[in-house]
Amino acid sequence: MPLFDLPLDQLRAYRPERDEPADFDAFWSRTLAEAAEHDLAPVFTPHDIPLATVDVYDTSFAGWGGHRINGWLLVPRAAEGPVPCVVQYIGYSGGRGFVHDHLVWPSAGLAVLVVDTRGQGGHSLHSPGATADPHGGASPQAPGMMTRGILDPDDYYYRRVFTDAVRAVEVAAGHPAIDGDRIVVSGGSQGGGIAQAVAALRPSVKGALIDVPFLTHFRRAVEITGRDPYQEIVRFLASQRPSAEAVFRTLSYFDGLNFAARGQTSALYSVALMDDVCPPSTVFAAYNHWQGPKEITVWPWNNHEGGGGFQREEQLRYVNKLFG
Amino acid sequence: MPLFDLPLDQLRAYRPERDEPADFDAFWSRTLAEAAEHDLAPVFTPHDIPLATVDVYDTSFAGWGGHRINGWLLVPRAAEGPVPCVVQYIGYSGGRGFVHDHLVWPSAGLAVLVVDTRGQGGHSLHSPGATADPHGGASPQAPGMMTRGILDPDDYYYRRVFTDAVRAVEVAAGHPAIDGDRIVVSGGSQGGGIAQAVAALRPSVKGALIDVPFLTHFRRAVEITGRDPYQEIVRFLASQRPSAEAVFRTLSYFDGLNFAARGQTSALYSVALMDDVCPPSTVFAAYNHWQGPKEITVWPWNNHEGGGGFQREEQLRYVNKLFG
Amino acid sequence: MPLFDLPLDQLRAYRPERDEPADFDAFWSRTLAEAAEHDLAPVFTPHDIPLATVDVYDTSFAGWGGHRINGWLLVPRAAEGPVPCVVQYIGYSGGRGFVHDHLVWPSAGLAVLVVDTRGQGGHSLHSPGATADPHGGASPQAPGMMTRGILDPDDYYYRRVFTDAVRAVEVAAGHPAIDGDRIVVSGGSQGGGIAQAVAALRPSVKGALIDVPFLTHFRRAVEITGRDPYQEIVRFLASQRPSAEAVFRTLSYFDGLNFAARGQTSALYSVALMDDVCPPSTVFAAYNHWQGPKEITVWPWNNHEGGGGFQREEQLRYVNKLFG
Amino acid sequence: MPLFDLPLDQLRAYRPERDEPADFDAFWSRTLAEAAEHDLAPVFTPHDIPLATVDVYDTSFAGWGGHRINGWLLVPRAAEGPVPCVVQYIGYSGGRGFVHDHLVWPSAGLAVLVVDTRGQGGHSLHSPGATADPHGGASPQAPGMMTRGILDPDDYYYRRVFTDAVRAVEVAAGHPAIDGDRIVVSGGSQGGGIAQAVAALRPSVKGALIDVPFLTHFRRAVEITGRDPYQEIVRFLASQRPSAEAVFRTLSYFDGLNFAARGQTSALYSVALMDDVCPPSTVFAAYNHWQGPKEITVWPWNNHEGGGGFQREEQLRYVNKLFG
Amino acid sequence: MPLFDLPLDQLRAYRPERDEPADFDAFWSRTLAEAAEHDLAPVFTPHDIPLATVDVYDTSFAGWGGHRINGWLLVPRAAEGPVPCVVQYIGYSGGRGFVHDHLVWPSAGLAVLVVDTRGQGGHSLHSPGATADPHGGASPQAPGMMTRGILDPDDYYYRRVFTDAVRAVEVAAGHPAIDGDRIVVSGGSQGGGIAQAVAALRPSVKGALIDVPFLTHFRRAVEITGRDPYQEIVRFLASQRPSAEAVFRTLSYFDGLNFAARGQTSALYSVALMDDVCPPSTVFAAYNHWQGPKEITVWPWNNHEGGGGFQREEQLRYVNKLFG
Amino acid sequence: MPLFDLPLDQLRAYRPERDEPADFDAFWSRTLAEAAEHDLAPVFTPHDIPLATVDVYDTSFAGWGGHRINGWLLVPRAAEGPVPCVVQYIGYSGGRGFVHDHLVWPSAGLAVLVVDTRGQGGHSLHSPGATADPHGGASPQAPGMMTRGILDPDDYYYRRVFTDAVRAVEVAAGHPAIDGDRIVVSGGSQGGGIAQAVAALRPSVKGALIDVPFLTHFRRAVEITGRDPYQEIVRFLASQRPSAEAVFRTLSYFDGLNFAARGQTSALYSVALMDDVCPPSTVFAAYNHWQGPKEITVWPWNNHEGGGGFQREEQLRYVNKLFG
Repeated sequence: MPLFDLPLDQLRAYRPERDEPADFDAFWSRTLAEAAEHDLAPVFTPHDIPLATVDVYDTSFAGWGGHRINGWLLVPRAAEGPVPCVVQYIGYSGGRGFVHDHLVWPSAGLAVLVVDTRGQGGHSLHSPGATADPHGGASPQAPGMMTRGILDPDDYYYRRVFTDAVRAVEVAAGHPAIDGDRIVVSGGSQGGGIAQAVAALRPSVKGALIDVPFLTHFRRAVEITGRDPYQEIVRFLASQRPSAEAVFRTLSYFDGLNFAARGQTSALYSVALMDDVCPPSTVFAAYNHWQGPKEITVWPWNNHEGGGGFQREEQLRYVNKLFG
Repeated sequence: MPLFDLPLDQLRAYRPERDEPADFDAFWSRTLAEAAEHDLAPVFTPHDIPLATVDVYDTSFAGWGGHRINGWLLVPRAAEGPVPCVVQYIGYSGGRGFVHDHLVWPSAGLAVLVVDTRGQGGHSLHSPGATADPHGGASPQAPGMMTRGILDPDDYYYRRVFTDAVRAVEVAAGHPAIDGDRIVVSGGSQGGGIAQAVAALRPSVKGALIDVPFLTHFRRAVEITGRDPYQEIVRFLASQRPSAEAVFRTLSYFDGLNFAARGQTSALYSVALMDDVCPPSTVFAAYNHWQGPKEITVWPWNNHEGGGGFQREEQLRYVNKLFG
Repeated sequence: MPLFDLPLDQLRAYRPERDEPADFDAFWSRTLAEAAEHDLAPVFTPHDIPLATVDVYDTSFAGWGGHRINGWLLVPRAAEGPVPCVVQYIGYSGGRGFVHDHLVWPSAGLAVLVVDTRGQGGHSLHSPGATADPHGGASPQAPGMMTRGILDPDDYYYRRVFTDAVRAVEVAAGHPAIDGDRIVVSGGSQGGGIAQAVAALRPSVKGALIDVPFLTHFRRAVEITGRDPYQEIVRFLASQRPSAEAVFRTLSYFDGLNFAARGQTSALYSVALMDDVCPPSTVFAAYNHWQGPKEITVWPWNNHEGGGGFQREEQLRYVNKLFG
Repeated sequence: MPLFDLPLDQLRAYRPERDEPADFDAFWSRTLAEAAEHDLAPVFTPHDIPLATVDVYDTSFAGWGGHRINGWLLVPRAAEGPVPCVVQYIGYSGGRGFVHDHLVWPSAGLAVLVVDTRGQGGHSLHSPGATADPHGGASPQAPGMMTRGILDPDDYYYRRVFTDAVRAVEVAAGHPAIDGDRIVVSGGSQGGGIAQAVAALRPSVKGALIDVPFLTHFRRAVEITGRDPYQEIVRFLASQRPSAEAVFRTLSYFDGLNFAARGQTSALYSVALMDDVCPPSTVFAAYNHWQGPKEITVWPWNNHEGGGGFQREEQLRYVNKLFG
Repeated sequence: MPLFDLPLDQLRAYRPERDEPADFDAFWSRTLAEAAEHDLAPVFTPHDIPLATVDVYDTSFAGWGGHRINGWLLVPRAAEGPVPCVVQYIGYSGGRGFVHDHLVWPSAGLAVLVVDTRGQGGHSLHSPGATADPHGGASPQAPGMMTRGILDPDDYYYRRVFTDAVRAVEVAAGHPAIDGDRIVVSGGSQGGGIAQAVAALRPSVKGALIDVPFLTHFRRAVEITGRDPYQEIVRFLASQRPSAEAVFRTLSYFDGLNFAARGQTSALYSVALMDDVCPPSTVFAAYNHWQGPKEITVWPWNNHEGGGGFQREEQLRYVNKLFG
Repeated sequence: MPLFDLPLDQLRAYRPERDEPADFDAFWSRTLAEAAEHDLAPVFTPHDIPLATVDVYDTSFAGWGGHRINGWLLVPRAAEGPVPCVVQYIGYSGGRGFVHDHLVWPSAGLAVLVVDTRGQGGHSLHSPGATADPHGGASPQAPGMMTRGILDPDDYYYRRVFTDAVRAVEVAAGHPAIDGDRIVVSGGSQGGGIAQAVAALRPSVKGALIDVPFLTHFRRAVEITGRDPYQEIVRFLASQRPSAEAVFRTLSYFDGLNFAARGQTSALYSVALMDDVCPPSTVFAAYNHWQGPKEITVWPWNNHEGGGGFQREEQLRYVNKLFG
């Protein structure tokens, strides 16, 4: 992959105008308030797996619309007293996967709550999902999730996803083994976009680990990359032509730029300069708008794998320091 | 494309065992009965387009669950008295498209009702859709529609689609410009699979034009072709491994083989010998089970385009003779 | 597809220098005069197809060199007196296709003459051709038609094609059911390039519908797009290296920019901003040179499908107004 | 590439029925006789290139229809008295290329006449052609040469090519530096198919070097391989559907099986077992029909590159023995 | 991916002849004896990473030729007394990766020793390697490792790899925290092929977890799959043609079939029926030759991902029972 | 391929800063001095092949580390007294190939020494290699040769290759049939990069024929092209992330820019403007730094095939003039 986006010095300064609807905050307040009418109703079912160092719970709770959202909760068995918790969101098309994929944080002494992304993971070979999105949307869609309900912010798929994600923080915070004042949200790609949004919507979280975030700076993204999943939106626009204005209006309620501009917590971002899935300018645009304490790790030779395992080690150290 | 399926002489004799659930008929009776509790509520809105020979109606009706299904109704303006009508179903991922794409039957003196496939057409460049599938399904899914709700026959996407399609025949039959005793169902690929099902579920239709039908002989199809959309199912199975039995049980309620075995109307099939999307053995399997008067056009050098415009001319002659 | 060409505001102003040979007009006058020595010899054979609203003629006439060029002529059966006619040219590699593909204009009350592009359509699945190009050319060629005879303007393939196309207008104008003062030329891609040339060479036509035109601004096109068919020329140049000067000299007699600069009729263009087959700057270059009354529809999210069915509806309205 | 054709032991025995028209010999007698009405008119223009061991002539002659066919003639400068000559035919889409590509035979003491394939080589990067096929054909065609004029044996492209090739032998035999009794024909792929035909049509040639021959056992080839150039024929059939019978009738006059069955000269074949361009069964089918003395080199791990340079060394030894 | 190999019932019975050199056992005895002349010289450097439940050692030891081989050793911190250990080998092109990728077995109460494959992992995004193969080989090679030194069993790359792997078991067995009588070898694809070999060469290991093993039944594999890495061998054979006999002779010393026929330990295999990288017949061929207690998990809808996380859970249960 | 690099006028002026280590000359002096401790030990074995105009020797000599390097030496048989010699280096992944591929220079009266590139050619279909690189390198590597030993200049693969190449000049110069004062080095792509380096390291050579050179201006190359083999380096960097500084330090000892800046001999370069393997700016960067007499042939429409046979003819004329 050659370099195709702005050079690094320009990226560091790239802080574009945001397209923010006047009622952005009202929209999200209303959304979360409506969701709050459904009892969270968390269920933690002990999961039988021959692991010695963690207690594993097949977890579910009522997300947006009261729909059941599944996840895995892993708590370090050796813990004495409540532990910090990482709430982990998933990259596009994956699900909560397997318990044994999520042992890093528990091995470091933290709990982890891995949250399914509704409707996704049905074809993921490595991290299958287990959660439906019972809401099909009020318009036709392109395959995938990017355009489900995209003509109306209230109907848009990510309204439900972000709401589920916010409520997952509440699920974690409410568990007796977890210290609700030490929650970190985390994710890569779509998971990074979700974590970014949750950190803005629930400023009580103490940290945000945001890797190569997706769902950010939509307008530029759909113009400079030819790869999925941003191209799902282009395919929709290429078909449903009279809808462009409605589409971009909807997206403005979900654009990571607008969440980043509200971000107050400590954030550790990462970005890859050869990433043509989530181009680096879209990541820096958010990072440069972020309001809270922040760091960014730059991976000059990587595509969308971003920092991979190296970044995971950065995060272990970062969180260790945060809660050390 | 090389030949990859059985040789033609074996295809002509290929009539495999069917996997039919004991309550197949009961399932569909119940399904249609439940749907019938929703008033059909057809709406025919005159559509403003500078065409001289047809009256065009932007049409909608209450499909499965009462959801609004859109379509185009074109009636030959010069008609004196009720005319026959072709109810046209659409290939996978397309929608009702544009009025001017559907002038063939009206130019031949028949009305045509083009029926959206719910949820599809959101990314179709050439035949955009306009109809939502508000029902998201009770399980995660692979991108596309093939696995939406696939773990439960009651929840499966095509239960809604086939129900919509049956009701579209009622919409056509109920329009004053149409002779309800002279309805033909028609479609290619997914549209062919739908027409095949409708002809079995509404034996009052007078003819079925079934081109390279999809949704037929699932078990063999997923094993011999590596192409979409059958591969959507394989991707789901490769991820959601404990679900295979449930998946094939669900599919048995929707398999074209079981509808073909109930087909009593006159049918004109077509099949292409180099079709690796809907392999010829899956088509002949259905054709050889069909009970009613039948013909099949074999296109030896074609892939999934099947008979294309040549077949359309066959159909014009066939229908002309049927109603001549 | 990402955006790859100039931004829209620059496109609207893009009006490059043209490379026009001194004898451009003389070349075409001579070419058409030579062709005129062959009697037009149109033949209109009634075509048997069970359609009720149109009279269909399998049509042929003597094109360049007296070679027979085939087409379909469809005349609205209900017409009282001569009707306007759309002369329709075809996109690259297609042919006149099937009668039932051309019912739009007749359904709107106009005749349509669909004109084969000589030699093409031999492998088109959806619009097969029926016309030979008996002239093989005086040099070796790359597969396809772009480089047939490209070393000499007199021998170049498109000299024959454009001449056929001009004569097709005469065929239409000479038919008794058609009003020769109300001819519109139309086409997309290659068909758009042909329509653009014919409108310049036969200014008596009343309108030109030019969609995403090919054969326009060759020099820029071969440098900025890596896709066929412009790349056929690059492949020829990469092989036949000493021929570059001769190639570009030949192309200067056929470049849409030079025809556009002579265009006097009313023209409705369309362009797609993500079109990497006929890049938008090559289309705007022609449009900005066009001399007559003009409009252009811009499709921001589309590739070479351009405006598709949406644009067809634009054209129906445009022609309706033109002749209304 | 996996093995995909018959196993080797079955290949060695594979000798299928041939589809031979009753007037096969008459057709070729007439064809060559008609061509003979054009004077051969060979021209040998000394070519200026700083080579010391060969005399190089830019050569042309009147092929089918009197059309000029170009080639290179290289004669070993050190020769005393007439030398044997290899007449070399070219693989599909290539031309005579560069003088310095043809030094093998002259370095071995033989002359070589490299013969352009008319119309081809216009896009070949490594062996550009210099010869036109002025005859465009009496039907539309698919890109490439395989379907030019394919509806009529008299009009088919390879009628002209094979005739040119036969006459090239006469050109070589007539040159004073060449011993006309010691001519060998040679070629790979298309060139192999041509050499195979020439050896049958001009049994006076003393040897035939036939590598991975194309144009052989058409019926099987188009059914078992999905690759070009055989697929050009399938694309034509898929489009021009009513033409299948005419196509296969034409091909029966050009099928290598029918030439092989008339082959009387010494022949050295080669075949590659993983060749999915010219599948091994099509090669063995011809080899097993060949009547004259014959050997075949089997390359078990190769695709269409066949024996490459290894086979060239085999040929040097074979020809050395033939004329030793 | 369609099914392309034998049907399951035939696979279960597929037990082909093996191609075994007479001195197979002598070759390996000599090889291991020679290696044993190098002191094992294990080094366990504590690795600084903020994990709480494991002790991590950056490990190295002297492999074949005394070359340093790197790995990670993770020991459950809470263990009282020596624990069982899984020795983990890596899939093709990967390396030992990141510590946090290997927490499953430690979380289950076992140690894990992850062993680099020499020379590999230099381009792995997700599991980079850290170990060189200082031995370049005595012949040219195709890119990748499959053909390094392939002309001579003594020089072949996998001689070094398998030797390293056997010695890794000794490294594990010699660590004070590990119970040397409870070693399990494990790996998928290449790692599975290595584990299979080690289990045969060190029958003292108590179990073998062998997933979709590579390096097994070479002769059939190179003939029925067109995918890498088996195709590296075909590319070599296609180039280095006189070497085929030497190549297959070399491979006979490394073929998993010959190791499987010596396997005495408990083995848990897995196989995927749509695996076109390591086709199921090559896996069953080994499994059916395995001598010890054995089970195989069949994944009917999967390609080379095989059992993925599901199989990992099977292994947890299997090992739990083995040592329970 | 579209144009993607700088426009030609900017290319002609493009002369970037070079990244040159302070001990560049010392490094190479030391390297060549160390190599010189191994006796050259050339072996010229007459090769049996039925060619009449050349004497062919299967040649080998001791390259770097004393490793045997193979080649072909062809000497014109008719020569009286020592002749000039072209030392020919090979493009990436190829080897010395076949004798009969190298007849051009001998046919022009020069000897040619074709030099294998160690380790390469193991999978080349058209020019197999015959020489091993027994040195595997001190770090893991990506498949291919670009990153073998890349962490240390002393260990880097091309240190061995360039040393072999310099010594090949000495082998040629030392042969009695060759005039050691009239040596020309030559090559395309990798061969061009090698020739460029040798001309700088052995200024006694009289000419350098450098076509589309690889291994030049690494820093820019890896950023602007997405194609192999430069991408091998990017894949290594993307995996072995902490190594970037070491990688670029190593490459600075091998960068063609630094050799070009030392080039004193007559040089004939060639460059292709659509070359996305060795982008034109990297070629011009070297050419513009070259110190000696120089010419460059610009091929505007070509990709990495560059000038192909046309350039070979340029070279024949150029060398003819040089030694004429």
